[in-house]
Amino acid sequence: MSGKVLSPLLGLADEEFMPRRPGSSVMTKREVRAITLANLRLHQHTIMWDIGSGTGSVAIEAAHLASAGCVYAVECDAEDLLAIEANCHQLNAPNVTIVPGRAPQAMHALPDPDAVFIGGSGGALIPILEVAMTHLRPGGRLVVNLASFEHLSEAADYLRQADWVLECTLVNIARTQRVLDITRFAALNPVFVLTAYTHSRQEQPAQPTPTTASIQEE
Amino acid sequence: MSGKVLSPLLGLADEEFMPRRPGSSVMTKREVRAITLANLRLHQHTIMWDIGSGTGSVAIEAAHLASAGCVYAVECDAEDLLAIEANCHQLNAPNVTIVPGRAPQAMHALPDPDAVFIGGSGGALIPILEVAMTHLRPGGRLVVNLASFEHLSEAADYLRQADWVLECTLVNIARTQRVLDITRFAALNPVFVLTAYTHSRQEQPAQPTPTTASIQEE
Amino acid sequence: MSGKVLSPLLGLADEEFMPRRPGSSVMTKREVRAITLANLRLHQHTIMWDIGSGTGSVAIEAAHLASAGCVYAVECDAEDLLAIEANCHQLNAPNVTIVPGRAPQAMHALPDPDAVFIGGSGGALIPILEVAMTHLRPGGRLVVNLASFEHLSEAADYLRQADWVLECTLVNIARTQRVLDITRFAALNPVFVLTAYTHSRQEQPAQPTPTTASIQEE
Amino acid sequence: MSGKVLSPLLGLADEEFMPRRPGSSVMTKREVRAITLANLRLHQHTIMWDIGSGTGSVAIEAAHLASAGCVYAVECDAEDLLAIEANCHQLNAPNVTIVPGRAPQAMHALPDPDAVFIGGSGGALIPILEVAMTHLRPGGRLVVNLASFEHLSEAADYLRQADWVLECTLVNIARTQRVLDITRFAALNPVFVLTAYTHSRQEQPAQPTPTTASIQEE
Repeated sequence: MSGKVLSPLLGLADEEFMPRRPGSSVMTKREVRAITLANLRLHQHTIMWDIGSGTGSVAIEAAHLASAGCVYAVECDAEDLLAIEANCHQLNAPNVTIVPGRAPQAMHALPDPDAVFIGGSGGALIPILEVAMTHLRPGGRLVVNLASFEHLSEAADYLRQADWVLECTLVNIARTQRVLDITRFAALNPVFVLTAYTHSRQEQPAQPTPTTASIQEE
Repeated sequence: MSGKVLSPLLGLADEEFMPRRPGSSVMTKREVRAITLANLRLHQHTIMWDIGSGTGSVAIEAAHLASAGCVYAVECDAEDLLAIEANCHQLNAPNVTIVPGRAPQAMHALPDPDAVFIGGSGGALIPILEVAMTHLRPGGRLVVNLASFEHLSEAADYLRQADWVLECTLVNIARTQRVLDITRFAALNPVFVLTAYTHSRQEQPAQPTPTTASIQEE
Repeated sequence: MSGKVLSPLLGLADEEFMPRRPGSSVMTKREVRAITLANLRLHQHTIMWDIGSGTGSVAIEAAHLASAGCVYAVECDAEDLLAIEANCHQLNAPNVTIVPGRAPQAMHALPDPDAVFIGGSGGALIPILEVAMTHLRPGGRLVVNLASFEHLSEAADYLRQADWVLECTLVNIARTQRVLDITRFAALNPVFVLTAYTHSRQEQPAQPTPTTASIQEE
Repeated sequence: MSGKVLSPLLGLADEEFMPRRPGSSVMTKREVRAITLANLRLHQHTIMWDIGSGTGSVAIEAAHLASAGCVYAVECDAEDLLAIEANCHQLNAPNVTIVPGRAPQAMHALPDPDAVFIGGSGGALIPILEVAMTHLRPGGRLVVNLASFEHLSEAADYLRQADWVLECTLVNIARTQRVLDITRFAALNPVFVLTAYTHSRQEQPAQPTPTTASIQEE
C-alpha cells in the first residue's frame, strides 16, 4: 500500500504543516481543526471557502475530506501564500485552489460554497460574514473561529439579526509535554468556534429544548 | 443530489444518534468524537476496532471516513447493541461490523487493526490494552478516552513500560445554550484523550523537543 | 479554642450555605467565589456592595474577610432574602447588611463602596454598572461575573468607553466525583470574571506589556 | 488610612511578587492561589506549612489571612529563598517564617500545622506527604497542587490508602490580554488542586452523595 493511501483523512500533526515563518505556531491547532471540520459538516463533494487561510491547515484537511469537491483558500499575506502552496504540494491536496487577495473582495468571484470557514478576518469580519451569508448554499454551514469575545459577540449579533441559527463552542485544550520523567499539561489558548446555518436546513435535527432543570444562572 | 450523498463525513449532531435509553446522554460527544477520530489518523482503508462501542457514535463516523475499510464495534451490553444496530442502519454505515461480546475476549477473533479506539473498558482496561497493543498493525494508532485520572495514569504507565510513544490531550468543551434572550455556556465533563503508537511508525514526524523556555513548573 | 474561631476566613463548602430552595445549586461556586474575592482585593475595612446577592455566599465570605468593614447584600427575590438571612446567622456574618430591593434603585442610598460585586443583574446590567461606577471610591474594584458572552461584551464595552481598566478571567473548573472505585471529573459551567478599576488607582502595578512572542493569533 | 491597611487580604497581582529570576513566571498564579487558599480553610490563628515555597506567593497571602497565626515557608533553593525574603518584607508578611532546607527533612522541627500546602516536592512527594499527614492537626487541611497526572495519581493513591478524604479540582484559567484594539484570552496551564483531610474532621459537612442521574460515563 503506498504512502499516499496511508495519509490520514484527518488528524495531521501541526508539525506536518510548514509554518509561515520558521518557529511560528500561528495556525489552527489539530484539535480545534478537528472540531472545526466536524462543524462544517463536509461531505465528499463539498465546495468550501477558507477565508484567511494562513498556513492552509484547515483548507488541506478539508480538501482531504471533500475529495471530490474543492476548497478555495483565500489569503492576502505573501508569506502565508507561499506556505499554503508548499503545504498543499507536500500534503497532497490538489483540490485546494489558492486565491490570493483580500476578503471580502476576493470572495465574490468564487463559486457558491456549501461550507465557509473564517479563520481570520483582518478587521473585516462583518463584511466577510455578509458575503459568506449571501453566497452560502441552502443547507450549508458557516464556521467562524474567534479568540476575542468582542468579535464573537459582534459576529453572533450580526448572524442572529439575520435570523440564522447559532451554536457556539468554547474549546479549551491542553496537551501533555514530557519533561524528563514527568508529564505536564501545556494549555492552548481558548477558542470560540461559532457555527451558523439557516432555518431552511431541513435535515438539521431539532435542537433539544433545555429543560428548566438544566438551565441555571451561574 | 441525494440526501445520502449530503450526509456529512464528520460532525453528526449527538441528537442524530439513538441513545441506548430515551433521554440518556452517555456517548462520546461530537467535539470529543472529532478529536478522537483525528488522533486515530484514519484513512480510507482503515481496519478499526471500537472497544466499548456504546451507541456506536465513534464507530459510525469512523466508518464514514474509512469508507473502503471496516470498523468492528465490540459491545457487551444488550441495549447498546440494539442502539448501535439502529444507528448504523439509520446513518448509513454498512461497513460497521457489530461484535457482541466482552472485551478483551471478543477481540481475539478480529482481523488485525490499523486503529483501535477504547471508549469503555468495563474494568478490564489493562487486558484490553494488552490485546490491542499485540494486534495493532505497524504504524497504527491506539486512542483511549478516559474520564478518570487513575485510569489515565494506569494506562499511561502500562503503555510507557512497553515503550510506546504517548500523547495525552485534556479536552474541556462548553456549548452555548440559548435561554430566553441570553446565551449561556454549558460545560461538558473534561475528557482525557490518550493517544499511543510505537516508535516503528516511521512516517510520524519527530516530536518537537520542548525548549527550556516553554517548560515551567506551574 | 471555640468553633467560631476555627471557622475559615475563606473556602466554605457550597453545601454549608442554605440554598434558596431545597436542591437548588444556583450560587457562585466555591472556586469561583475565591477568585472573585481575590479580584475584589478586599481589606479589613472594606465597604462592599454585593448586587444580586442570591444565597449570600459571596457577601458572607467577603464579610469574613472584611471583618471591620461592612457588606451590603442587595437582593429583590423574597426566597433569596430568607436564604441570605439564614446563612448570615448560621455562618456568623453580622457585618452583612441585607438590602431588600431592586438594583440599581436600591443602591443609591448605600454608603460609597471600596468594592462592588455584581453576581446578578436582572436585566439591568448597564444601569447597575453606571451607579456602581459613580459611587465606587478611588482605588476600588468592580467585579462582574457573567455566564453570557453577550453580557460580557456589553459590560466590557460600557466600562471601556468610560476609560476603566479591564481584566477578564475565564474560569473552567471541574471537580472530582467519587463513583464506586472511580474518580471522575464533573465540570462546572464556565464563568467570565470581569474586573474593572480606574486608572487613578496608583498602587496598582503596571500591567505587563505583552511581548510580540506572547501574542499570537490562534 | 495608611497604605498598609489598604493592602488586600487576598488577590495580590502576580507582578507584585519579585520572581526568583527577572522574567521568570514560575509561581502559583493569582487565580490558582485563591482557590488553594480557600481549600486550605485558613482561619486567623492557623499554623501553616508551605512546602516548596518558591517565591513565597502562597505563604504571603496565607500569612495575610492567618494574621494571628504563622506560616512556615520551606524552600531549599537559594535564589527562591532570597525572593521569599524580599517579598515578605515588601508585602508586609512578618508572620512568615522562612525555613531554608529540603523537605521532608526540614519539616520535622516545625510546630504541628493546621494546614499544609505542597506546591513543589522536588521528587520527594510521598515522603513529604507522609510527614505532613503525621503532623497535621485534627481538622486540618492538606492541599497539593500538581501539574502532572502521574503525580496526582500517586498522591491520591497514597492518601486514599491511609483512608483520607480526597477532593480534586481541575483548574483551567485564561486571562484576557489586550492587543491593539482586541482582547484575547491567554491560557494558563491546567493545575490539579488536590485537597485531603481525615474523617475525624467533625465540622466538615457531609459530602453530597452523587445521585444516579448525575453520574454518567463520558
